[in-house]
Amino acid sequence: MTDCRLDVLCIGNAIVDVISDTTDAFLDAEGLTKGSMRLIDAEEAERLYSHMGPAREISGGSAANTAAGVAALGSRAGFIGQVAPDQLGGFYRHDLTSAGVEFTTPATDFGVPTARSMVLVTPDGHRTMNTFLGAAQNLPPTALDEDQIGSAAILYLEGYLWDPEVPRNAMVRAIEVARASGRKVAFTLSDTFCIDRHRDGFNALIDEGKIDILFANEAEIQALAMVPHLETAVAAVRNKVGTLVVTRSEHGALAIRGSERADVPSEPVEKVVDTTGAGDLFAAGFLTGEARGLGLEQSLKLGAIAAAEVIGHYGARPEADLKALAGAVLA
Amino acid sequence: MTDCRLDVLCIGNAIVDVISDTTDAFLDAEGLTKGSMRLIDAEEAERLYSHMGPAREISGGSAANTAAGVAALGSRAGFIGQVAPDQLGGFYRHDLTSAGVEFTTPATDFGVPTARSMVLVTPDGHRTMNTFLGAAQNLPPTALDEDQIGSAAILYLEGYLWDPEVPRNAMVRAIEVARASGRKVAFTLSDTFCIDRHRDGFNALIDEGKIDILFANEAEIQALAMVPHLETAVAAVRNKVGTLVVTRSEHGALAIRGSERADVPSEPVEKVVDTTGAGDLFAAGFLTGEARGLGLEQSLKLGAIAAAEVIGHYGARPEADLKALAGAVLA
Repeated sequence: MTDCRLDVLCIGNAIVDVISDTTDAFLDAEGLTKGSMRLIDAEEAERLYSHMGPAREISGGSAANTAAGVAALGSRAGFIGQVAPDQLGGFYRHDLTSAGVEFTTPATDFGVPTARSMVLVTPDGHRTMNTFLGAAQNLPPTALDEDQIGSAAILYLEGYLWDPEVPRNAMVRAIEVARASGRKVAFTLSDTFCIDRHRDGFNALIDEGKIDILFANEAEIQALAMVPHLETAVAAVRNKVGTLVVTRSEHGALAIRGSERADVPSEPVEKVVDTTGAGDLFAAGFLTGEARGLGLEQSLKLGAIAAAEVIGHYGARPEADLKALAGAVLA
Repeated sequence: MTDCRLDVLCIGNAIVDVISDTTDAFLDAEGLTKGSMRLIDAEEAERLYSHMGPAREISGGSAANTAAGVAALGSRAGFIGQVAPDQLGGFYRHDLTSAGVEFTTPATDFGVPTARSMVLVTPDGHRTMNTFLGAAQNLPPTALDEDQIGSAAILYLEGYLWDPEVPRNAMVRAIEVARASGRKVAFTLSDTFCIDRHRDGFNALIDEGKIDILFANEAEIQALAMVPHLETAVAAVRNKVGTLVVTRSEHGALAIRGSERADVPSEPVEKVVDTTGAGDLFAAGFLTGEARGLGLEQSLKLGAIAAAEVIGHYGARPEADLKALAGAVLA
């Protein structure tokens, strides 16, 4: 799509990750489900924060991580999301902008601070997220730059954005604008609990043919289809979306488009430090491949490479030179 | 000192580290001296920040890192330092408190935000620090809790605190209180550029017999004595302080007390990621040993173990279980 100014424009919750090492016993004591994301209010955020250990603050947010990954792979990325005019919001804008992502949504004072997610990482590298949405839940449809949406080859949205009503409306509007401009719409189901909260809404989007590329992991596609079997779930969904991408952690990933299917193995990882962002970076790799017309197998491979990099360190944005790591595929 | 409520009370600049990977070429282009710390104003902080890449925010500050290390080794640590009532200040207090450090200095609004240091890490693991002191430069003598100082076996101060006038006064007062209570005073020279700025002040403290334990690295002890030779510099200073501790990076460390001397090798490090905090954590180990009456060699060994842990990851505070790593020495 040479007429497009951006390759991938991502819209999602603008969240700073507050990452702390923890133990399985701590998760048990707090009644938390390992690997999940839950939304919490200011009071619970304060309570949990006072219990957890010292932390690193690193910019995150699912779709924003994907945008950072797309930029790191050398494609043109943008992000739409809401921060407050506070220190966290300043860090957030700096981190995205200096990563090469176009981020022009203005900071606005809604009386709540920039969102943060307390990410508890157990020794096995799994992350459990406790998200206080703050300013992110107030992204209004009026904050969208519709020209920007019209000039991006792919609009990518995170399922998490469906949780609060205001950004849900922004998301629906963004999809309308993208489709009216003839652009592709990509969507990630985000989390099984998120699917449980919004199954009808997600299915409506899919059934109405509004999703060109759907991302899910194995648990999510099964939760969406409500069948405990991967291939049955895939069969139930594959014909409702243009392209279906399913990630399977260490078992690799698959993509289906019409009658075409590709399966790739996962990339080797020396040590799993923190799985936060693995799905986000997989999407970044796949979408970069799509934007370059690389075909399913090569796009999946780019996804696997980007995901493998991000789980080798704390934080959900790439630290190594992704373009170099993906050199053979991008060449 | 069984009559003491705290083993080590540290006083220093309360600074959040904003850590970003960089290249030697970037340091050259910015005219920065690798491995150094420089003080910058708000305008230069803004300018440099806009040039540097995405970052992790992790609580730091030299003496505070030492306090976190002392607590991680199982001794009783406190910290005195000034933060603003902002998000960074909130993170700062959380990180120290949840690390087990007593930190009761109130946040105060001086019209400047909590301090941050932009830490640029080159691929060889060396760090170059650009520090905006913000609220930290306003720590007044009146913020000292003199009962707390009187109840700590060792008062530990960083040379960096000598830079701004207000905390310098607080430092002088804290030393008076500690000495009047019969406590030990430990001091780190911090940085060769800091010594160049304050050689007379540091030498006055030492010559007046106010320093019981002096920490320096090889370059610092030579800068203080103004001789380009380690043993000559050591000989010039050793009799002016109760105990002299000199760290020598990969060449180990030495300690001298009167006629007694101990030398230890450095501990093996798998991969040097970020040397920020190596000296701070060495001091934490040594002071923990001192507080337990372990003797020079074992105290140096504790220092070497704590320093080796912190340079294996980003950030200047321990992440692994230091007590377990130091098990044999502490037993």
